[in-house]
Amino acid sequence: MERLEGSCIIGQSGGPTAVINASVLGCVEAALRSDCIRKVYGAAHGITGVLNDRLYDLTIEDPAELARIKYTPSAILGSCRYKLADFMTDDTDYLRLLDAFRRYDVRYFFYVGGNDSMDTCSKISAFLAQNDYACRIIGIPKTIDNDLVLTDHCPGYGSAAKYVATTCMEVSLDAKVYNNGSVTVLEIMGRNAGWLTAASALACRKGLGPDLIYLPEIPFDLADFIADTARAHERQRDVVVVVSEGIRDKNGDYISSYFSDISRNKDDFGHAQMGGLAANLANFAHTKIGVKARGIELSLLQRCAAHVASATDIEEAYMAGRAAFEAAEAGAGDKMVAFTRADGPAYSCKTTLADLVDVANAEKRVPREWINEAGNGLLQPFVEYALPLIQGETALETEDGLPRFAKLKKIAAREV
Amino acid sequence: MERLEGSCIIGQSGGPTAVINASVLGCVEAALRSDCIRKVYGAAHGITGVLNDRLYDLTIEDPAELARIKYTPSAILGSCRYKLADFMTDDTDYLRLLDAFRRYDVRYFFYVGGNDSMDTCSKISAFLAQNDYACRIIGIPKTIDNDLVLTDHCPGYGSAAKYVATTCMEVSLDAKVYNNGSVTVLEIMGRNAGWLTAASALACRKGLGPDLIYLPEIPFDLADFIADTARAHERQRDVVVVVSEGIRDKNGDYISSYFSDISRNKDDFGHAQMGGLAANLANFAHTKIGVKARGIELSLLQRCAAHVASATDIEEAYMAGRAAFEAAEAGAGDKMVAFTRADGPAYSCKTTLADLVDVANAEKRVPREWINEAGNGLLQPFVEYALPLIQGETALETEDGLPRFAKLKKIAAREV
Repeated sequence: MERLEGSCIIGQSGGPTAVINASVLGCVEAALRSDCIRKVYGAAHGITGVLNDRLYDLTIEDPAELARIKYTPSAILGSCRYKLADFMTDDTDYLRLLDAFRRYDVRYFFYVGGNDSMDTCSKISAFLAQNDYACRIIGIPKTIDNDLVLTDHCPGYGSAAKYVATTCMEVSLDAKVYNNGSVTVLEIMGRNAGWLTAASALACRKGLGPDLIYLPEIPFDLADFIADTARAHERQRDVVVVVSEGIRDKNGDYISSYFSDISRNKDDFGHAQMGGLAANLANFAHTKIGVKARGIELSLLQRCAAHVASATDIEEAYMAGRAAFEAAEAGAGDKMVAFTRADGPAYSCKTTLADLVDVANAEKRVPREWINEAGNGLLQPFVEYALPLIQGETALETEDGLPRFAKLKKIAAREV
Repeated sequence: MERLEGSCIIGQSGGPTAVINASVLGCVEAALRSDCIRKVYGAAHGITGVLNDRLYDLTIEDPAELARIKYTPSAILGSCRYKLADFMTDDTDYLRLLDAFRRYDVRYFFYVGGNDSMDTCSKISAFLAQNDYACRIIGIPKTIDNDLVLTDHCPGYGSAAKYVATTCMEVSLDAKVYNNGSVTVLEIMGRNAGWLTAASALACRKGLGPDLIYLPEIPFDLADFIADTARAHERQRDVVVVVSEGIRDKNGDYISSYFSDISRNKDDFGHAQMGGLAANLANFAHTKIGVKARGIELSLLQRCAAHVASATDIEEAYMAGRAAFEAAEAGAGDKMVAFTRADGPAYSCKTTLADLVDVANAEKRVPREWINEAGNGLLQPFVEYALPLIQGETALETEDGLPRFAKLKKIAAREV
């Protein structure tokens, strides 16, 4: 494949994770080492930074401070939720992107995100190819939801899963401390895929997990929930229940919508905004079973808890970023970095490439055979899948008893 | 003081913390070493375990497993919220306690708890003295609320403060990632005292703290909240606000009651149950300012997050437990262990004793002069007070990527 010289842009998109910056670092450090690359730019707030000419020159960041982003949560360059139109109907944004790419001599574009971001990458890649502008576009997967297809798992998931499992252990200890009858409902992120909710099952191995786990993969029935919970309450008084924010009934209606007294907004991708489900289910259980009940929504905490990130996840996120650059340098484009897990008892994981178009807008859900028959718990194959992903502790520095997160200078790039 | 031989009971009461078990360990290990002590009993669920003859024989626990409770959150022996009557009007419970103490030859009673628990200790101590039953009763302070008087601070506070400050840093990074205008409201425990809410200010030193902090010490005004938040939003788009669950208006009415559509229960001590305030304030800000808003209630997580406990807090909690036993062995009774901070720039802390009756039912609040004039932020003296308490990381073991918490055998005690 032809050697391609020029600059590169890296951007971040969608909901942040504890390790999305590790992927940026892997990509940026590889780019800084490459003699094909003149400048390494960071896009402020993802693709909107390219559209609005807000690029940072990462070449002039202090390398030691830059290295700290590996352990810094959220999206250090800023994120966005911006959906590109189909360029066949409206090419306004695409023309602006092409103009920016030309002005900054951008030949490599890396985008860290979920399936919506892969859709963005796929569209830009197609547009640039159609306009004969040589630019290699590689997506780097990122999502606590773990719902991307064609990859064994997604960077970001392991850390969120570790947070969820750790928190479930701690909350279980706390919620059962009085032994006078209680229901605690924990609500976990994941609209359509229950991977993160399922991670609570890792706590069960320690005898400190939830008693019931409801994933969006299984139609949720309020009467079954009450019957399951009442049975558990009878057996052991204090009950911990974990639900996905996205549980739906057999008609596909969100359970959260049953209780909604505030009209729900939709985000820019048309996803319904969730919230309040845990408190509402707890209140419902209180009414029906007559026990004290409490709802806890893990909310943003589960996607930004870098202090308890998985070392495996951090290293794999970094590896995904580096692999993205190396693949592009070697000639690949229009691809997403994916993970393949080696066969055999010992866990190991290597990177491969998937076609962007195959990843964009598709979703991978928890297989039915990994969920118990009653649809309220996980089975051993899930544990074997997820447990390797939460191994190891972060090397995050502390300073004065608190995390020492990276702070970049973010100096505006100048056109070449 | 006379040498007193017999057995001892230790019990835990009130809301658990990340380090309440460290205090139990400090006390139990000292008792196990003492030649005054025949048996060391743990009361199942605090004073209710003594009343219901549910005692564990801690003498026969595996010492290595017992040592792990130092890093295990929640109350390992179980907790209770049980208020003793005044024995002048109803001595039923007291007679049962006295009977149990006689049957088990209990000459030392240690109770780890907050001000309600110190009230319990004080009453039992008075009753036993009146009945000429020699028994030394020592309270060991414990509360994430940090609201006990006559002690510089309380075991449990440092760890909860470290969790709150760490979480505020992580949430601030996440909540500001889109930079398209948002208000994030975090709700933190603390009915009357704002110590834990104030701990969010420790994150501000890192440039990642909340923009506004509202404590229950300052009357809360919805119009001021909206004006403050709108101003911060205008300045920087994304705003993070921290509120105490216990904020009240100038008439003393809880702000949470403004929004309440579910009748609030009261707990056994007559405290109003809180909840939903963050979401309601967020929704109110959304309506008034017209920005996206989200409420996050830290809920139980802030009192059980042992994985991010403060080493200083853990060691001091252990020290308080040991000091309780040593004081009792040396002849003290009817006292609570308290902390005194040494003068001078370097932090150090030693134990003293306070009279139970002076601690029971009193509350220490954040001094007005540590809060800024506008009543929406903390000043440097608070930071100097709180920062030493969050120093150091826990030595909690991990196993398979998750905490390895203690699991005791809890073998029922037999009468002597």
